[in-house]
Amino acid sequence: MLRLHDCAFSGNGYKVRLLLTLLGLPFERVEYDILRGATRTPEFLRLNPNGRVPVLELEDGRCLAESNAILVYLAEGTRFLPQDRFERALAMQWLFFEQYSHEPNLATLRFWITHRLIDEERRPMVEGKRRWGYAALDVMERHLAGRRYFVGERYSIADIALYAYTHVADEGEFDLARYGAVRRWLERVAAEPGHIAITRV
Amino acid sequence: MLRLHDCAFSGNGYKVRLLLTLLGLPFERVEYDILRGATRTPEFLRLNPNGRVPVLELEDGRCLAESNAILVYLAEGTRFLPQDRFERALAMQWLFFEQYSHEPNLATLRFWITHRLIDEERRPMVEGKRRWGYAALDVMERHLAGRRYFVGERYSIADIALYAYTHVADEGEFDLARYGAVRRWLERVAAEPGHIAITRV
Repeated sequence: MLRLHDCAFSGNGYKVRLLLTLLGLPFERVEYDILRGATRTPEFLRLNPNGRVPVLELEDGRCLAESNAILVYLAEGTRFLPQDRFERALAMQWLFFEQYSHEPNLATLRFWITHRLIDEERRPMVEGKRRWGYAALDVMERHLAGRRYFVGERYSIADIALYAYTHVADEGEFDLARYGAVRRWLERVAAEPGHIAITRV
Repeated sequence: MLRLHDCAFSGNGYKVRLLLTLLGLPFERVEYDILRGATRTPEFLRLNPNGRVPVLELEDGRCLAESNAILVYLAEGTRFLPQDRFERALAMQWLFFEQYSHEPNLATLRFWITHRLIDEERRPMVEGKRRWGYAALDVMERHLAGRRYFVGERYSIADIALYAYTHVADEGEFDLARYGAVRRWLERVAAEPGHIAITRV
């Protein structure tokens, strides 16, 4: 059986849980307490030398890290990755946008705020992450105006990746009030058949 | 002809120039002065709403952003993207590692230092970026010990993506002295047939 090395709180882990569920693939979870350094032990570093969840462990023991790489791996040959070469490239574009321009701002502020981690080192970074987080939401809002999904008007891993931390943006004190197209898209994703909540582990 | 919207200084742009050259694909370049906001004009935002180079414009005018998404697009069906499904997933893993754990540290410090951009807002972030940059190099060093390339013992876009900012790490004041496996890998990439320098535009 597939084994997901995960943290219940993680939106990056949730991406993988959501896609595995949509695909009907059974899996078992191993939970790590990242606040206590459980992903920096010698045992975990053998699974992912970069010390981060999620990691997907295949039945033969091989391991794959990076949530969006796991999404691509699982989605290949399914309806969640576009068949058209250019649309597939656009899905990749949004996956990299998510990890570079979105997650480091929305996910990091959510993590720092909900776990009360804003100390002297992090406080000077909050304003920049707030500004860049809203810039990412602005890009999403403009793109979604007149579109139902991010790529090719179909639900894909681009939506799954961006949904993970956007739908809990309020936990990082981002206000989505002026992002109407984003809010309608969030409702659309949540209404997809087989959808599960981030709290379902 | 393919058109690359680019900045000569950019390692992300260099990744694409290098792969286009290795593939023997002719292209024309459009240069943008990112220090003067040339990628934040209304004209540029029509190419990439996220306001960043590189952007690959196809012959029919369609545009693709995010350097690593462009690499995947160009490499599909060539020897620079593994044929094996799991090896292809590992290449993706390293591409996401590069954009999340490597580029925001090594590339950003290189940019700030060479362009003298360390102001009051950025100064508190330098130490963290230094520490996380070395952490990324540590992961690369451990992985490359006993390996010739990042995935499947063959030169791939995983190597191209990670080479771009690693081989100019000194410009961000990173010292590679204790990274022997990384330095030998840099030499190996530079010796690949058809290799071009970052300064070749």
